[in-house]
Amino acid sequence: MNFVDTLFDDTYFMRKALALAKKALSLGEIPVGALIVSKENKIIAQTHNLTERLKDVTAHAEMQAITAASHYLQSKYLKGCTLYVTLEPCAMCLGALYWSQIDKIVYGASDPKRGGISQGVAIHPKTKVVKDILAEESEGILRFFFENKRKQLQ
Amino acid sequence: MNFVDTLFDDTYFMRKALALAKKALSLGEIPVGALIVSKENKIIAQTHNLTERLKDVTAHAEMQAITAASHYLQSKYLKGCTLYVTLEPCAMCLGALYWSQIDKIVYGASDPKRGGISQGVAIHPKTKVVKDILAEESEGILRFFFENKRKQLQ
Repeated sequence: MNFVDTLFDDTYFMRKALALAKKALSLGEIPVGALIVSKENKIIAQTHNLTERLKDVTAHAEMQAITAASHYLQSKYLKGCTLYVTLEPCAMCLGALYWSQIDKIVYGASDPKRGGISQGVAIHPKTKVVKDILAEESEGILRFFFENKRKQLQ
Repeated sequence: MNFVDTLFDDTYFMRKALALAKKALSLGEIPVGALIVSKENKIIAQTHNLTERLKDVTAHAEMQAITAASHYLQSKYLKGCTLYVTLEPCAMCLGALYWSQIDKIVYGASDPKRGGISQGVAIHPKTKVVKDILAEESEGILRFFFENKRKQLQ
């Protein structure tokens, strides 16, 4: 690993994705944050869940990140790119990532119930997957959100 | 089945989805068309594949239809709605349809390789699935597109 790679490692970018999840939390959205980094270590998309605000189930952090990165690169294929997301992508998002042929997917907390990887959704042969990066923090913020929701309903 | 239901049956709406697939074909897009019909038999979304024009893998006909219908209804849940699409939805689109809790999915041609149902992606317990509506026509237009593509490459 060269010097730049140690500076910009998976934990570095996941911490930024976590900050985006916190932004979602402050808006009352399910706190999931995502970003896409180009092969030059440049952040080309920064997003968080917006399904409540947009009243649109397709507005997951990852989906918006794919669209934003594709727009930036003017390419539907995200070659050389890495997606960082605080929660395991669902079937929809993993399906989209398949079509994008992205190089690498890094996620924090696992989602055994609704996660696409847990469901066995196909991953593109070009795509490498890394999990459990800042998983505790990612799960903690989600737990905080849902516990608060439950309290509000009581 | 009452009189209105026989007028507006699955074949009626799938023929309209096929017309949208033909529109995609004329634009050089993979010819898949979709529409969403409300419980009052009103078409509230009409879309076709736009992945090439938008350079965005998320621009499948179904994804655009979900976003358009949610916007129309001002609801992220597509209660009482039916999606018509000429090709079996992929994992991404079926994943999105899961979140939407749509009442019914009707598709034309099956896609054993990349279809979400063929891949075993979860379908919401509230959602009914009907297949093989104008399947030959839906497949025919796709075959025409890919045969032409191959000829252009020769």
